[in-house]
Amino acid sequence: MKKYVFGVDIGGTTIKIGLFLTEGTLLEAWEIPTRTEDNGKHILDDIHYSVTKKMEQLGIMHNEIEGMGVGVPGPVIDDGTVLGCVNLGWSKFNVEEKMCQITGFRIKAGNDANIAALGEMWQGSGCGFKNLVMITLGTGVGGGIIIDEHIFSGRYGAAGEIGHLVMKDDETQSCGCGKKGCLEQYASATGLVRMAHKFLKDSEMKSSLRMRSVLDAKEILDAAKQGDELAVKILEEVGSILGKGLANISCILSPDIFIIGGGMAKAGVILLEVIQKYYREYAFPTVKDTPFRLTELENNAGIYGSVKLVLG
Amino acid sequence: MKKYVFGVDIGGTTIKIGLFLTEGTLLEAWEIPTRTEDNGKHILDDIHYSVTKKMEQLGIMHNEIEGMGVGVPGPVIDDGTVLGCVNLGWSKFNVEEKMCQITGFRIKAGNDANIAALGEMWQGSGCGFKNLVMITLGTGVGGGIIIDEHIFSGRYGAAGEIGHLVMKDDETQSCGCGKKGCLEQYASATGLVRMAHKFLKDSEMKSSLRMRSVLDAKEILDAAKQGDELAVKILEEVGSILGKGLANISCILSPDIFIIGGGMAKAGVILLEVIQKYYREYAFPTVKDTPFRLTELENNAGIYGSVKLVLG
Repeated sequence: MKKYVFGVDIGGTTIKIGLFLTEGTLLEAWEIPTRTEDNGKHILDDIHYSVTKKMEQLGIMHNEIEGMGVGVPGPVIDDGTVLGCVNLGWSKFNVEEKMCQITGFRIKAGNDANIAALGEMWQGSGCGFKNLVMITLGTGVGGGIIIDEHIFSGRYGAAGEIGHLVMKDDETQSCGCGKKGCLEQYASATGLVRMAHKFLKDSEMKSSLRMRSVLDAKEILDAAKQGDELAVKILEEVGSILGKGLANISCILSPDIFIIGGGMAKAGVILLEVIQKYYREYAFPTVKDTPFRLTELENNAGIYGSVKLVLG
Repeated sequence: MKKYVFGVDIGGTTIKIGLFLTEGTLLEAWEIPTRTEDNGKHILDDIHYSVTKKMEQLGIMHNEIEGMGVGVPGPVIDDGTVLGCVNLGWSKFNVEEKMCQITGFRIKAGNDANIAALGEMWQGSGCGFKNLVMITLGTGVGGGIIIDEHIFSGRYGAAGEIGHLVMKDDETQSCGCGKKGCLEQYASATGLVRMAHKFLKDSEMKSSLRMRSVLDAKEILDAAKQGDELAVKILEEVGSILGKGLANISCILSPDIFIIGGGMAKAGVILLEVIQKYYREYAFPTVKDTPFRLTELENNAGIYGSVKLVLG
């Protein structure tokens, strides 16, 4: 095994890059902007440029690099083919082959939610567990499934599309995927804000949230922490939908552990407790005590996981 | 590899036993009653007695037997421990060790729904697929999950408890598991009859089902086949709940194929079509075309699968 390995996590606005020792230590992590113009055709070259510059700075030679893991915000199938990444402007192509041509490195690619789950299993909250489900509560709701220490991505790379579990029959608005009542419509940061507007409109309750001209998920979660009754009600509603969704996942996969990540995980224990309360209410008796943890690697989960993909 | 192998599938009323060649051919299948008295303590001895008799009849020697696979109606963990089988009166014990002591054979045990799925993958409707989900619509609703050609039973053996996906928020009656709104309450044979009674009570529609003093699932499905409008409505309701449940499973696992088995599968194409219609309505776009098939091995799926467990 060579000395160094790169982990890359491509997001819609920034690309996170990490330089690791192959024994697993993160030496340095940095970010570059994601240039989505021209259908995202500069993205891979930008990564190559940034990585090459870092190697020059540190005096690292090409033959000291074991490889590069790349996480992308869209489905990836086993041969390294990206089926399309709307946020990047990418359509279908083999990102492993393309990136290998550009860099000369051995490349392994995976879906961002999946590699975050793999990263948590390797060096985060999922350490020591073989089967886990990670839920990423961000702008959307993502999911990563690890079975027997490996990413399980299923046919068409669609395994772990937890955000599109149908949770409600009476939803009138459509989800981005075209369906109605998807988990993501309630439990993402966007969904939480949507629910807050609904509660504020349908209720007469006093709330600190009424002072805000523009609401964001952090404000709602902060208000709930400070005991704002309406914010607590909103959080309970979202928590019950999430808890039920995860209980249903347990009926199917019965994972060793659930890990909650994404921007909303920053709310911490208050979020975890409400999810777990409803999870236990909806869970099949034998899996009621499945443990829940918050992400430990936070925004770095993706770069850790993409490195783990390369190391195998 | 020795010449013969036994497959056993223990049900609540009968035990199915099959003698196979280790190359995979079923030579003979027969049934014995399940004696559940005295907490089911005669069951393993009864199987041993029946198998020994068959070997004597056919002149098969003990050293010609590769092993015996045993399917049980309850959760089994990887080391062969049964966590309890309510229908048999069994509490927790290691069925592989016990059966090995009794027979002297190498024993592998698995949950009945899981081994049925494995059997279908090996020589039935799932032949050629590596990842599949089998749903067994019988007295209850069971599920078997095959990942990378192996049973996935998860922590506590609870993976595949598809019957306990929470599907409805407004259910007033409790499921056997203690929760409310479980898939099994609608989509099992028992659930179908329950739904029929509800529809008959809540509607004024004429129906051939009104003539029956006691309803069973077969009559309801037959009436639907013959175009009885109310029976069709009942089937549509049940199909929509099942279709949504399977669409949610696709969001998590994205299997290569769904296989429908159990007593209700005898209704055939009419059942398959209604499930698939609603599946497509609720499924995430990339998995709308996941194929559905009916069980090919029918009641023998379990003995095939338990043999496959032994053969590895």
